[in-house]
Formats: sequence, structure tokens, C-alpha cells
Amino acid sequence: RINSARLWDSLMQMAQVGPGIAGGNNRQTVTDADAEGRALFKSWCDAAGLTMGLDRMGNMFMRREGTDPQALPVYIGSHLDTQPTGGKYDGVLGVLGGLEVIRTMNDRGIRTKHPVVVTNWTNEEGARFAPAMLASGVFAGIHSLDYAYARKDPDGKSFGEELARIGWVGDEEVGARQMQAYFELHIEQGPILEAEAKTIGVVTHCQGLWWLEFTLTGKEAHTGSTPMGMRVNAGLAMARIMEMVQEVAMAAQPDAVGGVGQVNFSPNSRNVLPGTVIFTVDIRSPDQAKLDGMRAEIERRAAAICADLKVGCAVEAVGHFDPVTFTPELVGRVRAAAEKLGYPHRNIISGAGHDACWTAKVAPTTMVMCPCVDGLSHNEAEEISPEWAAAGADVLLHAVLETAVV
Amino acid sequence: RINSARLWDSLMQMAQVGPGIAGGNNRQTVTDADAEGRALFKSWCDAAGLTMGLDRMGNMFMRREGTDPQALPVYIGSHLDTQPTGGKYDGVLGVLGGLEVIRTMNDRGIRTKHPVVVTNWTNEEGARFAPAMLASGVFAGIHSLDYAYARKDPDGKSFGEELARIGWVGDEEVGARQMQAYFELHIEQGPILEAEAKTIGVVTHCQGLWWLEFTLTGKEAHTGSTPMGMRVNAGLAMARIMEMVQEVAMAAQPDAVGGVGQVNFSPNSRNVLPGTVIFTVDIRSPDQAKLDGMRAEIERRAAAICADLKVGCAVEAVGHFDPVTFTPELVGRVRAAAEKLGYPHRNIISGAGHDACWTAKVAPTTMVMCPCVDGLSHNEAEEISPEWAAAGADVLLHAVLETAVV
Ligand SMILES: NC(=O)NCCC(=O)O
Ligand SMILES: NC(=O)NCCC(=O)O
Repeated sequence: RINSARLWDSLMQMAQVGPGIAGGNNRQTVTDADAEGRALFKSWCDAAGLTMGLDRMGNMFMRREGTDPQALPVYIGSHLDTQPTGGKYDGVLGVLGGLEVIRTMNDRGIRTKHPVVVTNWTNEEGARFAPAMLASGVFAGIHSLDYAYARKDPDGKSFGEELARIGWVGDEEVGARQMQAYFELHIEQGPILEAEAKTIGVVTHCQGLWWLEFTLTGKEAHTGSTPMGMRVNAGLAMARIMEMVQEVAMAAQPDAVGGVGQVNFSPNSRNVLPGTVIFTVDIRSPDQAKLDGMRAEIERRAAAICADLKVGCAVEAVGHFDPVTFTPELVGRVRAAAEKLGYPHRNIISGAGHDACWTAKVAPTTMVMCPCVDGLSHNEAEEISPEWAAAGADVLLHAVLETAVV
Repeated sequence: RINSARLWDSLMQMAQVGPGIAGGNNRQTVTDADAEGRALFKSWCDAAGLTMGLDRMGNMFMRREGTDPQALPVYIGSHLDTQPTGGKYDGVLGVLGGLEVIRTMNDRGIRTKHPVVVTNWTNEEGARFAPAMLASGVFAGIHSLDYAYARKDPDGKSFGEELARIGWVGDEEVGARQMQAYFELHIEQGPILEAEAKTIGVVTHCQGLWWLEFTLTGKEAHTGSTPMGMRVNAGLAMARIMEMVQEVAMAAQPDAVGGVGQVNFSPNSRNVLPGTVIFTVDIRSPDQAKLDGMRAEIERRAAAICADLKVGCAVEAVGHFDPVTFTPELVGRVRAAAEKLGYPHRNIISGAGHDACWTAKVAPTTMVMCPCVDGLSHNEAEEISPEWAAAGADVLLHAVLETAVV
């Protein structure tokens, strides 16, 4: 078993970096706070005897040597970046849980045939720069480095400039690593495990996603002196699209979701009908046909809504991944570890996207989940118990040892 | 008749101050650009021999003496501040048209019994600091000075601090002036005059307004891993309220409008259902009972929409004025001036709010309107013709001379 107190202590220390406003964190990707979090993580890895590889996306690969120089490493990873009002565990548990696995192996003098590498992926959240899982996406060959560097934050700063500014651009070519396997421990971010009193989620799949960014063009005009019949009301079109997305998601129950998290009105003045409204629809389903069907229906109905209001409508997909099936052999090892350790478990489909969704394209991959209170995440009030964190790291340890071969 | 070329030239010079991004202006209230515009206007007034009074709200009163020391001044006024993406004429025409009236009187050596004072009211637009017509509202005793000073812009800066920072706080107590009459020339900001080929609008009324700021409280949560049934979706509640406001306004046709110009999601991240959504509903009607009825219906239905979604709903009225009836005697003088000068005219109800709506509480008041292209305003593309501007200033001149007594 891992050292639960040490894991919890590291989680609490990392939570001091980039504090939020309500007990959580604002450690958005490639900010000064991110740099500080990286430095703290590196100092712990240095103390644990790991050597660092750093690639051109700022992905950190912290390596513990194996006994066989030919053997491919087993990777454990997740992310240290957070939402603007994020929790202390989303991503962080996976990285520090990986470090705790290494520390436990060091404590016990355990040698493995395969090296073990703990990875911190850059910009998993996609809050500051869309899409989410940007750097693991470049690693898996989904996005080009140029595409990633050119991503802009709401202030117009590019990802590439900001990564250079915080001093975390490495030399290593992105994706130039082969993996024996990739494991990711993460909090569920949903309500199922807690509700069923299961300490471990054996993650068999991850649902797919589309982020559809709508740019609606209305006619900027006075809210008082512009008669109702003369309005080209992009805000009203947005409202109708939001209601329609809700309808489409409800019709696709139980295995689908849809919603809107980001809305920007321009000029955003109380007495001006917006000239431009930009907002992002987030739809997900583990069923590929359903997911793509929702997208098609939303685009078709949005076009009709806008045509009816004479509002211009452009849609760009700013984030996407297909539903993922994790590698059955590794899934079996996670289940076996939970079984052996006596943790109540069940199969689960990840509702959120994870870096594991991209590594699955290039390596045998799976995930381990532990519960979070009320299923709440992407909220500073996100909470887990030390016992749940320890259970997740224990299962991770055993599944990794099984794969890295003691 | 006024000097049309000189008026147009001044309008074009003022449009150089605080340029927009698409040919219009961004000269928001109590910004550096506002200070620059005030200084330019003052230099012109100095050259015309006017003396300045400046009150604690930064309202500028530029005075031409009359022949009777006991006679109350006749005021002409409007505003030099603009929307963030505003036009070159909204407000500016009224101030510089007033200056042109003075310049014409100077050219002709016309003396009046009553002094004539051209006024630039601070923060008419209400874009940066709600409510609109803030400083004329303090002048009329509607708002306290403390209330006005405490208004905050989206960056959290207060009106009082910003007015001091740009150096335009005067000594004069706000409202310490009695007016013989108040005239305001303004572009229509609506489509009626142009459509009917009337050069002059004789403004008989102004419709009343409510600005209802809704603060909806949802549950900040992950867009992917939060099941549809667990969502407390403040964004969806906002969408339904927007649609409902449209319905209420359509049901109140022809003499009412309703819409939303400002929306703020928090944390405004693509994969986070918003914890807080703040937006402002703008409803107007010239009919007091209808206006207040719309407000009551919107608040009642919004509460039901939010209750249904378990979203918290708080409403604050951040702007309000009752429908206004302008002073019949002055309205008659405007009509007579248009008649005498041979300008096609019609009675009109102002769709937008104006400083005249507040002076009407404390002085005989009326307005003159001229057309604008396509009825477009609160848009950088706002346009008028030099002939329309001149016609408005001509009518203003004659109505003022009639009142100030030559
Ligand atoms: N795990 C997580 O919150 N990832 C962010 C990407 C997503 O929206 O699913
Ligand atoms: N005239 C004008 O645009 N005033 C701004 C206040 C309003 O929204 O009516």
C-alpha cells in the first residue's frame, strides 16, 4: 500500500500554489502559477531520484530507471493545470498519485524491469486555450505543434508565447516516445461511485466530445429605439440554440449530455443589442453514432433558428475526440488490483475527457477512478477523502507493478 | 440659419477623439478619451466667449450672458460620452449643435434677455456605469451624489474615483441651477423620420424604461461528467428568460420593446456549467401601465423558470425612468420653428432615454430630433447627413431664441 499521509500532504502543498477564491485553485495552464506548480513537482521528483525529459509542448516526463535497458517505460500521468475556479484534485491526484507510486517503490526498494515515468501533461483543461488535452493531443499526433502554439487565450496571448514566457519549453520532439502502457488515476467528477459506495472505478471507456463554437452575427443596435420588427437579435438566437441543445441532449438520454459554459456578447453593453455573440456548445456521448447525430442535429436546427431571425451563423469545432475503449488487458489489471486489495469497485465510463483519451491512440491505455463528493468537479468546492485518494493510488501501484514487471 | 459647414467640421473633429475600431467612437464616460473630448469642447467654448461652470458630477455648463441679470438661463444640452462601439452623433450632435447656436448668435451679434447655457452631461450612455443619464439624474434629485460616486464599472473602478482621476470634478453643488427651459437636440436612433422623409421630429414624449439586472445562481459543475438530471443550469434559465422577455415584448406591441444587451457567465469556461450568470433585461414603453406590467410579468415568469430549474434568481432594478411628457409650450415652439423654416416634420416619441428625461422633472423641457440612416445607433456605423444636422440645429436655434427672448 502507498503512504496515504504523504500523498495527502503533497496534494495539500500543491493546493497552496495558485490559490482560488473559495478554497480551490486557479492554476491555469502556462501561467506563473503553473510554472510554480511545475517547479514544486520537479523538486519532489528530484528528491525521489527521477530524471526529467521535457518536450516542446512543456510535457514533463519524470523517469525512474528499470532493470532492462531495452524495455519500454510504463507511463503514469495526468495534469497539474486547473480551471479558473477549479478543484484541488482534478488532474493533480493523477500526477501526485503517480509520484506516490514511485516514492512507495523507493521506500520498499522495488525494482522493475520497465522504467516508470510520471508525466505532467500541459493544458489538459482547455479553459485558457481550447481544445482540452492539447499537449497530449500533439503527443498522439492529433494536432500539429504549430496549431498548438497558435492557440489564443481570451486576452489574445498565444499558447506558444506563454509557454516560452514561463520558461517551460523543452528540446524533445513531441510524441517521440514509445510506451509499454499508460495509466491515469483521476477523480470521477461525477456521482456514480459515491452513490454506490464503490471506492474504485474500473474505467472501460471514455465518452466522446464535440465543442462547437458558434459565432452569431446580429445587428448592433439601440435596445430602446430599435423597433422589435427591425431587430437582428443574435442574443435571442443564442437563447433558442441553448434551449434546443438542452432538448437534443434530453432526447438522447441516458448516455449523453449537452450544455454551454462560455458566452461572450459584444459590445456587451446594457443598451446595445449585440453585434456578435460567441458561445461554445459542449456535447458528449460514449456512443459514436449518437454523438455525431447530436452534432448534426444541433447544427441543422441552429441554422434554421438563425435563418428565422436573419442572424448570421458560423460554427467551428474547437474541440473533439471520439469515444474511447480502453485496452482490455490493462482494464483487467486495474480490476484485479482492486479485487486483490479488497476495494469495492465497478466498471465505469468516464464522463470527462482525459489525456488518456489521446494516449489510447498510440499506446495501451487505461484509467483508475476514485469518487468525489456529490460528483462535483470544475468547482472550487470539489472534495475527496484521503481514503479514496489512497485507494486509487494503491490500485494504480499494483496495476503498474503488474505491467512494469517486478 | 446656423453655419452647416462649421457644425459638420466640429462633429468630425470631435470624432477624432477616442476613435472606435470601425469608423465610430469609443469615448466612454470618464476615460482619458472623455477628458480629451471635454478639453476640446471647452477650447471651442472659450473661443466663443463662454464661461464654464463645473459641478461635482463633472457636468459642464458653458454660459453666454443675457441682457437681464435677473433672467433664468435657457439651457441646451446633451452628452459627449459614447458607447464602447458608439457612433459619432449620438449625444455629440446635441452638444455641438448647442455650441453652433451660440456661434451663430455671436456671428449675428444677437443678444438675448436670458443667458444661454450649453451643457455636456456626464455619463449619459450608462455603458460603463449603470444607470444611463446618471449625472442629469443627480442634477434632478433622482440619485444622490454618493450613489453616483459608488457606481462601479466592469473592472471594479468607481465613478467617483475615475471622475477625480481624469480631473473633471467641479466645486458646484449638483442641481444648484434653475432653468428657464431645457432643449435637447438628438438623432432619432430609430427609423421613423427617415422612412417618412421628415427632417425634424417634434418630440412630444419619451418612453419609460426598466433595466432589470438578473443574478442567477446555478451549480458550477463539469459539462461532461455531470448527468443532465443533476445540473443546476443557470445558463439554461437565462436562455428561457431571454425567450420569455421576447414573448412579453411581442405581446405588448406596438408600443413596447424588450431585449438583452449584457450577459456575463462565470467562470465562463467551455467545460464548466456556470455558477453565476448576470444579465440585464432592458424593457421600454411610453405607456406607464404597460411598462410596469411588463416588469411584473417578467419578474413573475422568471421566478417560475428559475424555480423549475432550481436556479437561484435575484433581480435588481439598475436603471429606471417613467415615461415623460415634454412641456407643451416648448414642444409648440419646436413645431413652429420647423414650420417657419420649412422643414418637413412630425410628432415623435423618443425610443431612447435622454438627459431631457431628467431635466423634465425640474424644468420646462423638450427635444428636437433629426433622422439617422436606417435608424441605426449604438453602432459605429451610425450615420446622418450634414443637411439633417443643420436642420436640427436651425430648429434648435429658433426655438431657443423664441424662449431666451431677443
Ligand atoms: N478531466 C477534465 O476535467 N478534463 C477537462 C476536459 C473535459 O472537458 O473533459
Ligand atoms: N440616447 C441614448 O442612447 N441614451 C442612452 C440611454 C438609453 O439607453 O436610452
